[in-house]
This record gives sequence, C-alpha cells and structure tokens, in this order.
Amino acid sequence: MQPIKQKFQIEYTYSVFFTRNLFEISNTSLKDFFLDYQELGFQRKALIVIDQGFSAFYPQLEKQIKLYFKQAVPHIQLAPEIIYVPGGEASKNDPVLFDKLAEAVDIYGIDRHSFVIGIGGGAVLDLVGYAAAVSHRGIKLIRIPTTVLSQNDSGVGVKNGINFHGKKNFLGTFAPPVAVFNDLTLLNSLDDRDWRAGIAEAIKVALIKDARFFEWIEQNVVSLANRDETNMAYLIHRCAEMHTDHIAGGDPFEFGSSRPLDFGHWAAHKLEFLTNFEVRHGEAVAIGIALDCIYARRIGMLAENDLNRILDVLTALGFDLYHPKLSENDKINLRNGIQEFREHLGGRLTIMLLEEIGKGVEVHELDADLISLSVDDLENVQLHSAGAKVSQ
Amino acid sequence: MQPIKQKFQIEYTYSVFFTRNLFEISNTSLKDFFLDYQELGFQRKALIVIDQGFSAFYPQLEKQIKLYFKQAVPHIQLAPEIIYVPGGEASKNDPVLFDKLAEAVDIYGIDRHSFVIGIGGGAVLDLVGYAAAVSHRGIKLIRIPTTVLSQNDSGVGVKNGINFHGKKNFLGTFAPPVAVFNDLTLLNSLDDRDWRAGIAEAIKVALIKDARFFEWIEQNVVSLANRDETNMAYLIHRCAEMHTDHIAGGDPFEFGSSRPLDFGHWAAHKLEFLTNFEVRHGEAVAIGIALDCIYARRIGMLAENDLNRILDVLTALGFDLYHPKLSENDKINLRNGIQEFREHLGGRLTIMLLEEIGKGVEVHELDADLISLSVDDLENVQLHSAGAKVSQ
Ligand SMILES: NC(=O)c1ccc[n+]([C@@H]2O[C@H](COP(=O)([O-])OP(=O)(O)OC[C@H]3O[C@@H](n4cnc5c(N)ncnc54)[C@H](O)[C@@H]3O)[C@@H](O)[C@H]2O)c1
Ligand SMILES: NC(=O)c1ccc[n+]([C@@H]2O[C@H](COP(=O)([O-])OP(=O)(O)OC[C@H]3O[C@@H](n4cnc5c(N)ncnc54)[C@H](O)[C@@H]3O)[C@@H](O)[C@H]2O)c1
Ligand SMILES: [Zn+2]
Ligand SMILES: [Zn+2]
Repeated sequence: MQPIKQKFQIEYTYSVFFTRNLFEISNTSLKDFFLDYQELGFQRKALIVIDQGFSAFYPQLEKQIKLYFKQAVPHIQLAPEIIYVPGGEASKNDPVLFDKLAEAVDIYGIDRHSFVIGIGGGAVLDLVGYAAAVSHRGIKLIRIPTTVLSQNDSGVGVKNGINFHGKKNFLGTFAPPVAVFNDLTLLNSLDDRDWRAGIAEAIKVALIKDARFFEWIEQNVVSLANRDETNMAYLIHRCAEMHTDHIAGGDPFEFGSSRPLDFGHWAAHKLEFLTNFEVRHGEAVAIGIALDCIYARRIGMLAENDLNRILDVLTALGFDLYHPKLSENDKINLRNGIQEFREHLGGRLTIMLLEEIGKGVEVHELDADLISLSVDDLENVQLHSAGAKVSQ
Repeated sequence: MQPIKQKFQIEYTYSVFFTRNLFEISNTSLKDFFLDYQELGFQRKALIVIDQGFSAFYPQLEKQIKLYFKQAVPHIQLAPEIIYVPGGEASKNDPVLFDKLAEAVDIYGIDRHSFVIGIGGGAVLDLVGYAAAVSHRGIKLIRIPTTVLSQNDSGVGVKNGINFHGKKNFLGTFAPPVAVFNDLTLLNSLDDRDWRAGIAEAIKVALIKDARFFEWIEQNVVSLANRDETNMAYLIHRCAEMHTDHIAGGDPFEFGSSRPLDFGHWAAHKLEFLTNFEVRHGEAVAIGIALDCIYARRIGMLAENDLNRILDVLTALGFDLYHPKLSENDKINLRNGIQEFREHLGGRLTIMLLEEIGKGVEVHELDADLISLSVDDLENVQLHSAGAKVSQ
C-alpha cells in the first residue's frame, strides 16, 4: 500500500511592544492588545505568574494589575489568585513549581483560548512559558520581561525550559508567545550585575552580525555602565530586533545544528554549571565571548585591534573576564565542555568564532591546548585590568 | 519605540508507511528511511520504548530488533537498553514513567539529531511522544503503532499527551513524528475488543466526511468483525489518509475551536472517565456516535434511515451502545460532560452533529433534556439488539 505523505505549515506571528509604566491606567498597550480577543460567547481568562525577586521591589504591583484589568480589560477574567514563584535559576530547578503552575491552570479553568501572563526575569519566563506550552497542549503566553537580558534576548524569542536532574534546560519546547511587553521602567530596580549581564547578549549579537551596532555600544559604553535609560532603551530595542530577525530568517525551531546565537556560549554554559549558577548567564557569556575572541586571535583569525576593542568594551562595562573555575582541574572541565557541546549538537561540533567585528564564521574544531592557553591569557587580561582599575 | 513584528512559518513533513513484518531483515522500510540520516560526522542514536502489553505476545521481538539494526541500519547506534512501559492508560497516568523516559534520553545521550522510537498502542505512543517532544525541546520521533486505533488515528496524527492529576491529556504538545510505520501483522495479537475499538474512529471519520467509505464499511461489516486482514488493511489506510488530510487541510495545531474529528467524542470522554477507563476509547466513541446520532434524529436533523444504518453497523461490529454509567446520578454527569467540553473549548460550545451520512455540521448548543431522552433511546436500542443477538 502506498505510503501517505503528510506536509503542512504552521504560521506564527507576535509583536514585541516597548513601553513605560505598563500597568498605569493611562497606558493602553495591554488594553489595545486584548481588543483583538473579544469574540462574543467566549469568556477568556488570564492567569498571572510573577517573579518574587522582582515583585519584592513593587509592593503595589498586584493591586495595580488588578485595577488595570478591571478598568481597562474587563472582558478578560483574571484568575482570582496571582501566582508567585521564586526568581532566578531556583524557579527552573524545582519541579514542584512546574506542578504548581499546571495545577493553577487546571483549578482556574485556563483553557487554550485563555492567557498565561509571565512577569519576571528570563528564568521565571522560561518556567512559565514551559508550563503554558504543555498545559492543554499550549495556552496563549504573554511575556512581560523584567531584566535587560529577558527584554533583549530570551523574552522575545521562542524557547522555554526548565532544568531536570541538574541538566540545564533539559525539558522545554519551542513555543512562540502571542505578545511581549517590554516595560523600561521595570528595569530600575535591577542591581548592577543584572543590568550589566544583559548587555553581554547585545555585544554578542553585534559582534557576529552588526559592526555598527558594536561601534554604537563602544561609543556609549560609559553611559550604559552608568545606567543611562535612553541608551539602554535603544540597546534593548536593537538587540531584540536582531534576535527576532535572526529567528524568523533562519531556523526558528533549530532543526539544524547551526547556532550562531550561541556565540560565546559553549564555555558560558560550562562556567554557569561549574559555579552552580552563581555566575549569571550574561556574565558567563561575557567571559565566553572574551575566551573565544582570544582563541580566534591565537589562531590568526581575528585581528589584534579588534580583539582589544572587544576586551575594552567588556572591561569598561565592569565585566570580570576570568573566573578561577575556568582553570580548575587543570582545565579538564573546559575540555569536557567542548565535548558536551559537541554531543549536544549531535556529534558534530559547530562553533561560531569571530573573523572581524560584525562577522562570525562557523568552525567545526577547537584545539583544546589552545583553549587552555587562551584561558591563561584571560587570567592575565583580568589581572592587568584590575591593576588598571586600582591605578585609576 | 516601534513594536517589533515577528512572523515565520514552520514546515512539517512526514510519511506513514504500510508494511508487514517490519523487523524481518528482508523488509527494507526502516532501512530505507534511515538512509536519509547518514551525514558524515554525526553519530545518530536511537532509543526504543515498547508497550509491555504488546511485547508480551512477541518474546523474540527485542532480539529481532537488535539484529535488524545491527545488520540493516548499522549507522544508527541503538541505546544499550530497550525501555518497557506498561500498556494502556496506566502509561499515561503514572508520572514516574515520564521521568524514566526523560532519564533514559539523558543517560543514553539521545540528542536532537537522534531518534526515539515508540512501539505500542495509542496510550504508550502518547507518553513516548510527549517525553520525546519536551526532552531537549524535541527529539525526532518514530511511531510504530500496534493497535487498530493507533494505526488509523492517533499514531498518524500530531498530538501527544499524558494525564495529570486524573485529567486526561492535560499535559501534551503538538509534535509531528518524523515517520510512522504501520505493520499489519502486529495486529494479530490484539484481542477482539481492541480490534473492534479502532474501527469506531474509521466510522467516525466516514460519517462526517465520506459516505462512500461508510458504505464500504457497511458492506464489509461481517468480514471486519471476523478479523479479515485485507479489509482491515484497507480500512486503516483510508482512515489514516482521511485523518492526515484533515490535519494538513485544516488547523493542524488546533488554534481555533472547531474540532470536527471530535465527532462523538464529548460523551465518549466523559464515559471513559466515569468508567475509570475500563471502557476503551474506541468503545466509548462508538457509544458517543450513537448518542449524538440519536440526538440529531430527535431534533429532526438526521433521517431515520441514516440513523438505523449507523446503529446497525455499530451493532454488527459487536459494540455495546449503552453503558449504565450514562444514566448514573440522573444523567447529571452527562450534563456536566457538555459543560466541561464547553469550558475545554473556551466557553463556546462547538459540537459536530450529523446531517446525513458523510456530512457533519457544527452546532453551538445541545439541549440537556433531549440528551437525556437520547440516552434512554440508547438503552432501548441496546436491550433490543441484545435480544436480537440472543434470538439469532
Ligand atoms: N529561553 C531562552 O531563549 C533563553 C535565552 C537566554 C537565557 N535564558 C535563561 O534566562 C535565565 C536568565 O535570565 P535573567 O538574566 O533575566 O536572570 P534571572 O531570571 O535569573 O533573574 C536574575 C535575578 O533578578 C531578579 N529580578 C528580575 N527582574 C528584576 C527587576 N526588575 N528588579 C530586580 N530584580 C529583578 C530575579 O528575581 C532574579 O533573582 C537563565 O535561566 C537562562 O537559561 C533563556
Ligand atoms: N494522540 C492522539 O491524537 C490520540 C487520538 C485518539 C486516542 N488517543 C489515545 O490513545 C489511547 C488509546 O489507544 P489504543 O486504543 O491504541 O489503546 P491502548 O494504547 O490503551 O492499548 C490497549 C491495550 O492493548 C495492548 N496492546 C497494544 N498493542 C497490542 C497488540 N498488538 N497485541 C495485543 N495487545 C496490544 C496494550 O498494552 C493495552 O493493554 C488513549 O489514551 C487515547 O487518549 C490519542
Ligand atoms: Zn545567552
Ligand atoms: Zn478518538
């Protein structure tokens, strides 16, 4: 009997909105969005899940949100309870939290025409997105990211996930949101580490794709380090745009094994793990970028001047470019990191390196000894720049 | 700042192959399929998960599979362990089994370029499909369905799922397989109940879409009941084809709320639940079809002659058309069933009813009192046909 050949396409669309004071009654972003979801005979609901590490800074938030929905979006029924989850990696490590969200979806009758709204950093959004994606085979997800990293990178993309038996993002799906609302004012409460960490992803995407954007970061590095809001708004918008363009233009659900946006990430993942996530993702990415650029310089791929410009920007932002865990066990850990990344990709290593600022190129081998030497270089750079800081 | 508008499409393709004796060395179906996955530098792996209720009938299966892969597909590395899970709804009820599969994916290094191969009935395939879909955000899934229902319906589609806190299919995703292999010879060991149950889905799809297919079933009803293989092969192929066509032509990931393929299913779901899944899905669907057709007759939508033809076919196949649980609690359970289905769809009820054989039509209301009367009718039909059986 003839085989049956199946073939179909699924289209996804969503918008990323940029705003301030999202929950003030005068702000119509959310109200306008929900106008599209007003069919007769449907009672759509919304379940809100909030990052506790974030909400601690906004004691009036819950009251404000409830008032906003009551007045501006009366046709959407808020679940009677707002769910709070711990912020940061803890939210992705504890399977009980996933169960709690799935239970809330069940108890409050959140169906596939209703919404789950996640408010928080990248970790909480990853958890909430995963729970929404698999409950009833997918509930509409709205993301309200509250960190630089989640506003310019993770929160505007299509991935979610939680950790499983200590394995980072082991469980997850590709599940685009129906909308993302980036509220700049929510970033005020971030500590300097998280403000800075998110900038690493912008540098990453600039380095592999857009030399002019890198120059802009270079020129504004002092004001970015000093938390200038206007420049941060631009940086987030441009970075989010490059991420979403990349996703749409390439392989959104990563069926292939090329991962340009993972530039600087193989070592970063290993370092996050080795430090038990005490080093933030963005901080680890900054180190990963520095390491791979030094490596590219060592193999003659990247010019010295380009390398120095990159290291200078990272240092000026206040990033540490070395961590003792990189040298631990005679760097065997880092060698394993390459191996793990290779396995993760299915046996063939594909790593993005830099040819020049704004231009990445994929390679399929890394020399472990040269990586070791590059780590030594990083340690020297760090010593040197610490000295520089002291002598200023 | 301008919103960013994201838009992209994902294309899915897969084939459903029809064969006999899949794991005999002379059968090249699997071998041919895997030829497409032979790039240099990749070591693809495969993890096999088998339904114990099925494998109990095939003591040589594991040996045969291992030999087949060794000889015919040497470039794919089988995980050293084949995983067995209990068959039937038990596999979807126990969260420990999901964890066991995710762990196996981890332990045996099954990455996104490798395969998970599920062999079993619809329940086991739903579990395996879910575990594969969320591990590493999606591992390639091959389904080898071993029941009539999974070969003609669930196994060729795009859905998976497990139960959560007693809620059927509460956790799941839409995740197309990369291939489906329907081996007719595997159906020999099915008991009569499971042989028959799967035919209900063929009747369902014939009734709403293809009068000629229904006539064919009518004409061959005796030989189908007597387990004629050739006719079953045709029934499965045609039903699978109609399912896959429907998926591709419509709304594959069910973003809307129209669910034509759920004809006869609202009462079926409730009945499965009320009987703690002692009534098989297909058996419950047969009752659900009969109920909704009697209802359609009562409201003057369906002609009496059509109704009788439908009830005759179901009865001739040996289906019970009534279950005492339908009348329990003065039919309040069934009223709740309508309400639950409404909530499941997001507040607006959309139920497929029959206008004539081969032509479904959607309605948005069901009259609970008429449903009650239709249940009484079912009980009478059942008494009558039981009498008829006895008097034969
Ligand atoms: N899904 C993706 O595509 C993707 C991409 C990159 C990173 N990630 C994930 O994102 C996570 C990192 O996200 P992150 O960098 O946003 O950090 P985070 O979510 O770990 O948050 C860091 C800390 O900031 C707190 N916080 C959040 N918003 C705040 C605010 N406005 N004011 C004060 N404190 C606030 C949190 O409670 C937490 O303690 C990692 O788990 C990483 O794996 C996902
Ligand atoms: N994903 C979908 O789109 C979809 C659609 C319809 C139904 N389903 C699900 O499918 C499940 C029902 O599947 P099913 O009807 O295939 O039954 P099943 O998977 O429950 O299997 C019934 C019994 O038959 C045994 N079995 C399987 N193959 C056998 C064989 N060849 N010989 C002897 N015994 C065998 C099993 O071990 C089990 O005990 C339900 O959980 C239902 O929700 C899913
Ligand atoms: Zn990153
Ligand atoms: Zn069904």
